[in-house]
Amino acid sequence: MLGGHLLHGGDYNPEQWLDCPEILEEDIRLMKEAGVNCVTLGVFSWAVLEPEEGVYDFDWLERIIENLGKEGIQVILATPSGAMPHWLTQKYPEVMQVQADGRRNLPGKRHNFCYTSPVMREKITALDRALSKRFGRKENVILWHLSNELAGNFGDGACHCELCQSAFREWLKERYGTLEELNRAWWGRFWSHVYTDWEQIHSPAPHGEYTMTALTVDWRRFVTEQISGFCTMERRAVAEYSDLPATTNFMDTFKNLDYNRLQKELDIISWDNYPFWHREKDEVPVAAWSAANHSMMRSFQKKPFLLMESAPSVINWRNNNPLKRPGMHMLSCMQALAHGADSVQYFQWRKGRGSYEKFHGAVLDHKNGSDTRTFRDVSEVGARLPGLSSLLDGTVNRPKAAILFDWENWWAVEDTTGPRLDFCYPDWVMEHYRAFWEQGIEADFVDMNADLSGYRLVSAPLNYMYRAGWAEKVRDFVSGGGIFVTTCFSGEVDDTDLCFTGHHPLEDVLGIAPEEIDAPSEEFENSFTYSGKDYPAHTLCAVVRAKEGTELLASYEKDFYAGCPAVTKHAYGSGEAYFLAAASGIAFLRAFYKDVFAEAGLENALGAELPYGVTVTERMGKERVVFVMNFRNEPVCVDGIGTWTDAETGEACADRLQLAAFQCRVLTKQAD
Amino acid sequence: MLGGHLLHGGDYNPEQWLDCPEILEEDIRLMKEAGVNCVTLGVFSWAVLEPEEGVYDFDWLERIIENLGKEGIQVILATPSGAMPHWLTQKYPEVMQVQADGRRNLPGKRHNFCYTSPVMREKITALDRALSKRFGRKENVILWHLSNELAGNFGDGACHCELCQSAFREWLKERYGTLEELNRAWWGRFWSHVYTDWEQIHSPAPHGEYTMTALTVDWRRFVTEQISGFCTMERRAVAEYSDLPATTNFMDTFKNLDYNRLQKELDIISWDNYPFWHREKDEVPVAAWSAANHSMMRSFQKKPFLLMESAPSVINWRNNNPLKRPGMHMLSCMQALAHGADSVQYFQWRKGRGSYEKFHGAVLDHKNGSDTRTFRDVSEVGARLPGLSSLLDGTVNRPKAAILFDWENWWAVEDTTGPRLDFCYPDWVMEHYRAFWEQGIEADFVDMNADLSGYRLVSAPLNYMYRAGWAEKVRDFVSGGGIFVTTCFSGEVDDTDLCFTGHHPLEDVLGIAPEEIDAPSEEFENSFTYSGKDYPAHTLCAVVRAKEGTELLASYEKDFYAGCPAVTKHAYGSGEAYFLAAASGIAFLRAFYKDVFAEAGLENALGAELPYGVTVTERMGKERVVFVMNFRNEPVCVDGIGTWTDAETGEACADRLQLAAFQCRVLTKQAD
Amino acid sequence: MLGGHLLHGGDYNPEQWLDCPEILEEDIRLMKEAGVNCVTLGVFSWAVLEPEEGVYDFDWLERIIENLGKEGIQVILATPSGAMPHWLTQKYPEVMQVQADGRRNLPGKRHNFCYTSPVMREKITALDRALSKRFGRKENVILWHLSNELAGNFGDGACHCELCQSAFREWLKERYGTLEELNRAWWGRFWSHVYTDWEQIHSPAPHGEYTMTALTVDWRRFVTEQISGFCTMERRAVAEYSDLPATTNFMDTFKNLDYNRLQKELDIISWDNYPFWHREKDEVPVAAWSAANHSMMRSFQKKPFLLMESAPSVINWRNNNPLKRPGMHMLSCMQALAHGADSVQYFQWRKGRGSYEKFHGAVLDHKNGSDTRTFRDVSEVGARLPGLSSLLDGTVNRPKAAILFDWENWWAVEDTTGPRLDFCYPDWVMEHYRAFWEQGIEADFVDMNADLSGYRLVSAPLNYMYRAGWAEKVRDFVSGGGIFVTTCFSGEVDDTDLCFTGHHPLEDVLGIAPEEIDAPSEEFENSFTYSGKDYPAHTLCAVVRAKEGTELLASYEKDFYAGCPAVTKHAYGSGEAYFLAAASGIAFLRAFYKDVFAEAGLENALGAELPYGVTVTERMGKERVVFVMNFRNEPVCVDGIGTWTDAETGEACADRLQLAAFQCRVLTKQAD
Repeated sequence: MLGGHLLHGGDYNPEQWLDCPEILEEDIRLMKEAGVNCVTLGVFSWAVLEPEEGVYDFDWLERIIENLGKEGIQVILATPSGAMPHWLTQKYPEVMQVQADGRRNLPGKRHNFCYTSPVMREKITALDRALSKRFGRKENVILWHLSNELAGNFGDGACHCELCQSAFREWLKERYGTLEELNRAWWGRFWSHVYTDWEQIHSPAPHGEYTMTALTVDWRRFVTEQISGFCTMERRAVAEYSDLPATTNFMDTFKNLDYNRLQKELDIISWDNYPFWHREKDEVPVAAWSAANHSMMRSFQKKPFLLMESAPSVINWRNNNPLKRPGMHMLSCMQALAHGADSVQYFQWRKGRGSYEKFHGAVLDHKNGSDTRTFRDVSEVGARLPGLSSLLDGTVNRPKAAILFDWENWWAVEDTTGPRLDFCYPDWVMEHYRAFWEQGIEADFVDMNADLSGYRLVSAPLNYMYRAGWAEKVRDFVSGGGIFVTTCFSGEVDDTDLCFTGHHPLEDVLGIAPEEIDAPSEEFENSFTYSGKDYPAHTLCAVVRAKEGTELLASYEKDFYAGCPAVTKHAYGSGEAYFLAAASGIAFLRAFYKDVFAEAGLENALGAELPYGVTVTERMGKERVVFVMNFRNEPVCVDGIGTWTDAETGEACADRLQLAAFQCRVLTKQAD
Repeated sequence: MLGGHLLHGGDYNPEQWLDCPEILEEDIRLMKEAGVNCVTLGVFSWAVLEPEEGVYDFDWLERIIENLGKEGIQVILATPSGAMPHWLTQKYPEVMQVQADGRRNLPGKRHNFCYTSPVMREKITALDRALSKRFGRKENVILWHLSNELAGNFGDGACHCELCQSAFREWLKERYGTLEELNRAWWGRFWSHVYTDWEQIHSPAPHGEYTMTALTVDWRRFVTEQISGFCTMERRAVAEYSDLPATTNFMDTFKNLDYNRLQKELDIISWDNYPFWHREKDEVPVAAWSAANHSMMRSFQKKPFLLMESAPSVINWRNNNPLKRPGMHMLSCMQALAHGADSVQYFQWRKGRGSYEKFHGAVLDHKNGSDTRTFRDVSEVGARLPGLSSLLDGTVNRPKAAILFDWENWWAVEDTTGPRLDFCYPDWVMEHYRAFWEQGIEADFVDMNADLSGYRLVSAPLNYMYRAGWAEKVRDFVSGGGIFVTTCFSGEVDDTDLCFTGHHPLEDVLGIAPEEIDAPSEEFENSFTYSGKDYPAHTLCAVVRAKEGTELLASYEKDFYAGCPAVTKHAYGSGEAYFLAAASGIAFLRAFYKDVFAEAGLENALGAELPYGVTVTERMGKERVVFVMNFRNEPVCVDGIGTWTDAETGEACADRLQLAAFQCRVLTKQAD
Repeated sequence: MLGGHLLHGGDYNPEQWLDCPEILEEDIRLMKEAGVNCVTLGVFSWAVLEPEEGVYDFDWLERIIENLGKEGIQVILATPSGAMPHWLTQKYPEVMQVQADGRRNLPGKRHNFCYTSPVMREKITALDRALSKRFGRKENVILWHLSNELAGNFGDGACHCELCQSAFREWLKERYGTLEELNRAWWGRFWSHVYTDWEQIHSPAPHGEYTMTALTVDWRRFVTEQISGFCTMERRAVAEYSDLPATTNFMDTFKNLDYNRLQKELDIISWDNYPFWHREKDEVPVAAWSAANHSMMRSFQKKPFLLMESAPSVINWRNNNPLKRPGMHMLSCMQALAHGADSVQYFQWRKGRGSYEKFHGAVLDHKNGSDTRTFRDVSEVGARLPGLSSLLDGTVNRPKAAILFDWENWWAVEDTTGPRLDFCYPDWVMEHYRAFWEQGIEADFVDMNADLSGYRLVSAPLNYMYRAGWAEKVRDFVSGGGIFVTTCFSGEVDDTDLCFTGHHPLEDVLGIAPEEIDAPSEEFENSFTYSGKDYPAHTLCAVVRAKEGTELLASYEKDFYAGCPAVTKHAYGSGEAYFLAAASGIAFLRAFYKDVFAEAGLENALGAELPYGVTVTERMGKERVVFVMNFRNEPVCVDGIGTWTDAETGEACADRLQLAAFQCRVLTKQAD
């Protein structure tokens, strides 16, 4: 466990207060009071660390680190590439990003740099090495925090400058070898888009080419590769004088970067979680979304991760930013642990007085200091975590189910112009996850490179693209006894968006042959009956033929495809494959997966029927540690739970568990 | 009849499959099976026809044409200017369009070329001539297809580069002679917009001038002229070694180009029809819209036209793309014939594997080849058409009614800032056409240059601009016995958007003097009673004074203009003029035109009352050929039809006609 | 009183008709008929006054002025900088504005010039001086109309060219002295935004910095300063040969310019009023909005102002432009006088034949000349005004209440990213004003520089920014017996958007300490009971602690802050301060202010309860002159008015006053 215990703390920006020594003293005193044991320093501090080119001023940082160290507070040290100082952009304008429309940015905001620029790379490398040399072996420094929310530039995350265009062409040469092969893979003869010189290739642009999905997906792959390369470069720089592990903070469901690729550069995963609690009275959609993202972070390395940022109270960038209702702060923190986090870190410790994030919630407020509900909420978390540290040390969730979430599939299905133009891939996937969540069945998120062998169940909604080897991998998985679920508009194209011809690549496994796909208008909504209940079919309704031996679990009830399969099940080898021909909604998915879980022998950690709004997760170690969370703002009971001990109170819990509004209880028993 | 029979086939892109000879063989075999007798080749093939500058590779095309010829399949041969090869844009960047905001496009997409560019003109001319030389006298080549969907660049259709600016200025010099005259015509003293040098004139731009309707309309006129000139140039190039007729494919209700102007360059009209069937259960609005566009295509030359593209199943570019319900494909094809088409051509024969249109419906699917509902639907059409060819040969619709649809009026009324800013001219016109359609009264669409002498009835909704001579032409038409219908916000301005002063130009004919025009807010909706029924008046309510002798058919019922004329009728010479002071809706228009048709002695070809969703058209030749179409997805009966013969079954039909869901029947009898 | 009587007339553009002498003659004849005594000449006439560089042609203008003079019609003479001639933009492209995205405009539209450009300044100064020399002492010329609707460029009003960037930097140097101070004031260390060279500073840009509110607000301050400087320059130019007063015409609630700053350059305030009458049946929201703007114009100099433009009938730029219902034209004109106007001027006298504003309503129509409802409406106003001139001469409204409307606060609260992103400051303020209006309590609008000493009551809704000295000023005001009302999200930041720390600056005065602020989602709407009635609390709900001695007038009823103060009252010195913790709506504000007015001893001029839709204002001079206006389209009675004389009929009015639909009556009695 990094740091030796659950971390609690967050982003700390003392450089904004260097002329207020009383503030800096108060900070440390109040950190102790709030149970903070770890802060992140140096994010966005370039202008202070290097006030003019080549002149470093690290003394202030050393004082801060040492003062924290004296009080036993650990430090995560950031490299400051997230925002550039003005002297850099002034002297070397080429470090600023060029947007897709060809316009070079002016300085400002953040994440406004070209990942390719040699100057940018040289300047940040030098600074990182200097930081490493000075702080890389400080006793209370425990982790490198490389840059910040990479590609988070309020746009497509990419730079389109000429340096990047050249790098893109080199990357394509590497990938395709010849233009002939590229033209073949990109189906270049359509609309005369045959490239006869590498120099003709340009990134997707609103005033140029954006209609070739093969190009747009390759560009996105390249951007991920380029940014990963930048990250590796920073990692090497800080490693020069330091053996500390390194992370960079991810964001939720972030399209600009393929995190499955980027995570390979990191020792530990961390991320920033800002769920929209209290968007509506029913907190379940948001809770499931947040849970899914925690689980995805855990899944990247199948290890505990860090919650690197979260809001101690409100945030400031949504149209309306509600206060966290009492209990929600604790529950939200516990949710992170429940899904595998080993920390609760906040953005930010103290609200700055000015600029963009001055109203973003912080542990310390402008006006009332620590005499606030937020500070008390945070202090409660600070008081609770130490009691869980040793229990959770070395534990992690080990689900038997996995859901496919693949960035390349995401990019392709949203870029293509298929039966409809409004696909939101994460929404499709997360709706499936929510059906898992409601029944307390945890899942990993995997991409098509994953090893499926440890799973009983793999679900792959809207799996439009089948990357090389995926069909074979799924076939082996099912053949070997696995249960596979997929949906309409899956298995359509290969890695470069070329449609498969002849047959669906998994026709044999699924036991169906797709013929047509309807994207019905609202008045043409269809329906089907599953297990005696009626469910809607809308948005996308595949018309498929069932092969012999395929079981029809539901059929369409209306229109010309009445009687055609809506839900099928097909045995293949020792396993089974389910096909959902139509989009329906959470009500159907809930019923459907209930049956699938039963078939797969999956049940939640309590073996209990969960009331709406309650879920459970389990972290496995020497003992079983089960988190039971109530996302309803009222008390609930869970019945039929068996016998457990409340890990925090020592109380025995048998058969029935009481949960207060927004409460999370941690139960434990010996592992079998 | 071009090709000697009704054409059936569509766009064929074998250049995408040259490395798959088995596909090319299968194509011809399945074309025969589907009753395809004509395909369009070479659209977008520039990069394959001229892989590098000046190097032509036509052999593959010749093989394809010959193989088709052997099987009796005719060829429409396209010039490939619709999309440019990358070597061209790389070497001559000036061929790419400049957008209104001054930014030059990058290569990509399609229709991305400057119509003025001498380089572009030179390169395509040379290629066209070479194509003409090689294929212009091939036996099975029957038609030149010049470029493709001209001005269809997903934008304003125009290029704003400096070459185009110069050409625009030359065009203006030609039109106005002197700046003094231009300033007068454009009312240049408003906001000090007096031009003192031709070089000061620039195309409309978001960062420049867009508020002068006289400028914006003249710019649109120029764009049409420039593109027509480009088309003529291509036509001349292919004519060098070929006597074949030439067309270019139009699009529906396409604002970028005045097709009444462009059609003069063509021997035959063709167009691409993509109605949004199954947008809602009531198919009538879409059916009437599609019918209107067919009729407009026929009206340009008052001759049969070609349906050049249509979807054999779905399309791929709407937000949701529903499958065609059973029967709709046949009905949609028959509708084209019913309004004057001599062909049913599809985009496309076979779905490509990649790029933008890979999911656009095609006769042949990626996966199931010809074993699909679509292929069977297409084959049914292929089987039906031959039986109709000789019946329809030499026939065409000859309506006694015309509706004004004038591009210059369209541009002006939508660009001006009048009583409201949200005018959609086609919506206004098509609502009137729908009232015709529902009663089986066919209409031509005419612009203000048209000869009105053959019509009994002319309707001119939202006729804002009166081009030179139009008032006189209408006056003569009514005076000579014609019936004229028009609406509020008509007769406001002349050719350069100068308001008429003193009087409405047709005050004498209409018998009313407009005084004010209200664009009431929603809560102020008005109403009137016409023939005993109440109808709403909204959106635009003219307040006019009736002259002596003008008949008030309805008056406003509310607000301060209660009692003022809402619908008037005025005898003038031997004819009559109706004025509709307010926008109301289809319910009123249906009732109103029923009376007008009676007055004009117009009745539908069956002389029958038509059930909702059913319409009829008639193509006149030696025999009368009547199409009866049911756009409801359920059977209907039409009563009181008299005596006919079903042209396809030979069955006699007397008095009552049965139609299945989405059925079209073709009836015939001797012409009187 | 300027001109010696109430002015009646409007913008007159004879330069558009110089080739129609009969029109020019008719104009003067009809002006007399309509009771027009004053027209504005020369707005947008640059191209005619200076047809080529340095060549002036003023003869036509002199003839027009003299012909008007002969008929006793006065002239307001404009400087023509509102639109540039094409010769200027062609020869000196640098005069055209550069947009925030860095693109230089093309010529066109209007207000498209750089306020900094030396060339623009030189050319217009020379022309203004020449105009001054020729016309500055003409007997019937009474006022200079400098430019037109400054900053009204359909955008942000600013130019971002390099000249403006330099001027901005100079302005910042002047303001901050050192970069150190600027970095401190702008909280530059956030996101490493530390400036180390003045040249690094750039105006806010979509492709650069827009997230620093301190920068964006300073940029807006600079723009106001730069445009004010331009205005002063023109004022000096026309003053060279003329002693006439000068104005420029303002617009309603216009964010681009701080009119409190610009008004200092002017001798008299004038503005252009285009309320959206008949947007809905309830005219009150629009009437109150229009009233507020009139009052704001009066408040700038606490003197009568001119209504410089208004529509005699419709306007042409809203999506739908309804006709004025009978009575509304007169009422709308009377409303201007009621709030302190000494004129009723129109845009425009005669509709031009072409270009952007040809359908904007005018006294004279294209087709029916003077035989229109509009002309008769205008003539009625022309007949009524002379009877009011001497009564109103020297009078003005002198309210005892003031509402804070501060541009810098506006800019800051809408630019910042706080608890919500959709603030509309004018909507917040105007809702408070409406509660005043409905009860006939007139208010001045003041900014934070104002002298509060004359007021009984000051209300400051959404007073986010406390500029230097404001807290002290309010404290003195309350301490001295004043009543102060403010709301949540007030007192947050100082002049450069730095949050106050420790305490709310007026915690002692308000008697509350803010702790948190909720921006609840819709399902979380709260409520409170005030004086026995229930009201909603939504949008923004501050959670505050009441200090000892603070009176709770209402508390939240739901959620975790149930019981917390929603409305408080706190005595401070001889005065009282009210705090409204939550947004609620007009129903609450109506009830709340009724009590506040009673507390403050404020009552309307009639001392009567006013029916919904009726309001009163008073202009004080030797006599009291009271306007009673009925904005309902039906008759109403006002009871309990005391004894008055109808100033126009001489009729005595006691106790009960009858008002016809949309009627305004003018009552008078001796001042006490």
